[in-house]
Amino acid sequence: MITVDHIQFRKAALFAASVVERRNTIPVLSTLKVTANGSLTLVGTDLDSYASASLSYDGDEGEFLLPEPTKVAKALKGAGGEVVTLSQIDKKLRVEAGELTADLASFQSPDDFPAVDAVAEEAFGAVVGTDFFRALDRVRPAISTEETRYYLNGVFFHKVGDWLYRAVATDGHRLFIADVPMPGSSGDLAEGVIIPRRAVERAIAAFGKAENGVRFAVGGAQKTNRKDTTLAPTTWNSRVGFAAAVGSLDLSLTTKLIDGTYPDIARVIPSGHPITIRVNRAALRKALKSITPLSTDKTRAIKLVATPGQITLTLNSPDVGTSHFPVAAEHQAPTGFMIGLNARYLGDAISSLTGENVDLGLTDSAAPMTISDPADLTFKVVQMPMRV
Amino acid sequence: MITVDHIQFRKAALFAASVVERRNTIPVLSTLKVTANGSLTLVGTDLDSYASASLSYDGDEGEFLLPEPTKVAKALKGAGGEVVTLSQIDKKLRVEAGELTADLASFQSPDDFPAVDAVAEEAFGAVVGTDFFRALDRVRPAISTEETRYYLNGVFFHKVGDWLYRAVATDGHRLFIADVPMPGSSGDLAEGVIIPRRAVERAIAAFGKAENGVRFAVGGAQKTNRKDTTLAPTTWNSRVGFAAAVGSLDLSLTTKLIDGTYPDIARVIPSGHPITIRVNRAALRKALKSITPLSTDKTRAIKLVATPGQITLTLNSPDVGTSHFPVAAEHQAPTGFMIGLNARYLGDAISSLTGENVDLGLTDSAAPMTISDPADLTFKVVQMPMRV
Repeated sequence: MITVDHIQFRKAALFAASVVERRNTIPVLSTLKVTANGSLTLVGTDLDSYASASLSYDGDEGEFLLPEPTKVAKALKGAGGEVVTLSQIDKKLRVEAGELTADLASFQSPDDFPAVDAVAEEAFGAVVGTDFFRALDRVRPAISTEETRYYLNGVFFHKVGDWLYRAVATDGHRLFIADVPMPGSSGDLAEGVIIPRRAVERAIAAFGKAENGVRFAVGGAQKTNRKDTTLAPTTWNSRVGFAAAVGSLDLSLTTKLIDGTYPDIARVIPSGHPITIRVNRAALRKALKSITPLSTDKTRAIKLVATPGQITLTLNSPDVGTSHFPVAAEHQAPTGFMIGLNARYLGDAISSLTGENVDLGLTDSAAPMTISDPADLTFKVVQMPMRV
Repeated sequence: MITVDHIQFRKAALFAASVVERRNTIPVLSTLKVTANGSLTLVGTDLDSYASASLSYDGDEGEFLLPEPTKVAKALKGAGGEVVTLSQIDKKLRVEAGELTADLASFQSPDDFPAVDAVAEEAFGAVVGTDFFRALDRVRPAISTEETRYYLNGVFFHKVGDWLYRAVATDGHRLFIADVPMPGSSGDLAEGVIIPRRAVERAIAAFGKAENGVRFAVGGAQKTNRKDTTLAPTTWNSRVGFAAAVGSLDLSLTTKLIDGTYPDIARVIPSGHPITIRVNRAALRKALKSITPLSTDKTRAIKLVATPGQITLTLNSPDVGTSHFPVAAEHQAPTGFMIGLNARYLGDAISSLTGENVDLGLTDSAAPMTISDPADLTFKVVQMPMRV
C-alpha cells in the first residue's frame, strides 16, 4: 500500500496526464505509469512528449498503471481528504481518498508502457528563468497552425550572439521575435531547434512561473547527418527537455523537436524604415477594440491613414458600414500615407508588447511594417501589409 | 440627431438583441427597430419573441433601423465615452461614441420590420416577484430538449389551488414541480400554458432579479377553439408577456406559447411511499461529485444501496472500474434495498434544492422516487429509476 499527500498526488497526476491524448487507439497510452521506488513517479505520454512528476510517499515499492488519470483526479477532488492511498487488490488498483473507494480495472501491464524518452547526448543546456518562458509566450501568437509548412508549427530557438538567444515564430503573415540572454549556457545552438507549439504551451503552463530556475536541455539519442548539406553536419538535435522542482514536485517534460529547416528569417526583417509612427499603446488598443467588432470577416482588415499629429484607423465592412477611430500620433509620414493591416495580427502584436508606446516602422504601403516598443529592444514584430 | 446615455443605450440594445438570431435569412430580422418618440424604443425579434427596451433621450423624433446591434454594442463598449449620438446622414446611420464614428449601412427600411407583437385580450395577469422566476429556474433543468414531444420543450404553468400556481417541467425521465402563490392575480389559468424554454431562460435572465415587481400576462390576439375537445373551449392563450422597469430602462418581452397539450402529470406523482431516506444534502452532493467523474457514459448510472444508518452510492463503469461512496442516512429501508438512478438527474434535483437535508421517497426499485426538502414543500422532483 502507498500513501501520498492528496493535493500533491492530484497535481502530479494532472501534470503527467497533460500530455495524454483524450482518445487513444493504443489503450496503454491512456494510462499513467506509476513507479514507487524511493519516490513515486507518474509518467504520461502521447509518444511525442513525456511528462513525469515525482513526489515523496510512504509505503511499498512497486510499478503499476493508473487508468483514466484525469477522471481519477476529478473524483479525488470531489472526495477530499488529506491523503490518497493506492493498493493492488486482485489485479485491480484500489484508490482511496476521504470516503471514496475506487477499484480501477487494469487491462494492461506496466511492461506495455513505452520506454520513457529523455534528452540524451546533451548538445545544449542552461538553467532558464521566467524571462525565457516570457520570450516563448510573447512569440507564441504567431506560431503557424497550417500543416503544410509543418516546420512553422513551433518556435524556432537559436543563437544570435555570444550569449544571446532568439525565439522566433511566424505564419508567413507576421513574424514575432523575442531575444533572451543566456550567459550560463553550455553547448551550442547555432543551427537552432524548432520546439513544437504544444510543447511550448505545456512548458509555459508548467514552468512559466517557476522561480528557482528550470533546466532546459536540447539533445538527441539518434545521430544522423542532415540531408541539407548547406548546414554543418552536426549531431541531430531531436529532443528538448524541461525539468524543475515546482513546490514539492519534481516535474520534467521531454518532447520531440520538429525535424525541419526553419526559413531564413533575416531576409524578412527590414533593416531600416524611413517612417516611424509613435502612438500610445493603450490608445491604439482602444481604437482596435472599438472598430474591429464592426467587421464581419475574420482578418478584420483595417486601413491606417496618417494625418498631421494623428493616425486614423478605418474599417470598411460591406455588410455593416464604415467606422473611423483617430489616435494621436507622433510621426513624419506624408499626410495621406496609408497602409492596410490585419487588425487581429496588429492586436496580437500589441498584446505581446508591454510598454507605454508603440513604434510602427514603415517604408511604404506594400513593404513589411515593424512593431516595437521604443523602451524594449528584446521584442519585435514584422507584419506584412494587406491590400484594402 | 439623438443623444442617449452610453451605458443605458448599450444595455437596451443588448436586451432587444437577445432575441435576435445570429444568422437570419430575412435581413431585416438581424436589425433592431429604433423609434424616437417621447422615449427611445429599441425592438428586436425572431418572429416568435419580441424584446423591447425604452429609455429617455434628447433630440429629434424618428424611426430607423440599427443593424448588427451586438457588434455595435461591442464597438461602443470599446470606444467608451459618456453618451452615444445617433444621426442619419445620406441614408446611413451614424453612431458616435468617444472617438469612434461608425457609418452603418442600412439596406432595409423600418417599414419592413414586422409589427410588434404583444399580449392582447389578457386572460391572466399578475405582478410577480423574484419567487416566480425562482420557481421557473428550479424546474428548468428538467425541460425536455427532444423535439418529437415538442409540448415538453417548455415549462407548464397552471393553477392548482385558490391562489396557488405551479410550474412543471419534465423530459419523461424526471419531473420537477415548483409551486408559487399568486394572491393578487386576475383572470384564470386553469387550463395552463406552456412557456417555451428560451422564453423561460430569457425571462429569468432579464427579470429574475427585478426587485420592484414584473408584470406577467397571458393572452392572445387570436381566438380559436382548441381541436382537443377534452379541454373546455376557451380563448386560446397564445402569448405570454413580461414587462418591468429595470434601472432606467423599460423592458418587455413577448413570446408565443407552445401550442400543445401538456400530459396529465398528476398520474405520475406518487401519492405516498413506504420508505423515506433522509440524507444531508451537502454529503449527497459530495458523494455524487466524487464518484460520477469515474463514469464513461452520459447517464452516469449509479446504484444506491441501503444498509443500517447509511446509503452507499456505487458506480460501475466497465472501462474504468467500480467506485463506492457511503453517506450517513436516516431510514427504515430493509438492509440491501437497492435502486438504480441516473446520477446526472439526481445531481440536477439536488442543485434545485436549497435546504440542509434531502428526503428520498421510495417504494421499490422499479417505482418512481420522489426527491424533496423536508423543510420546503414548494418544490418536488419525481425521478424514474434505472436498471443497473
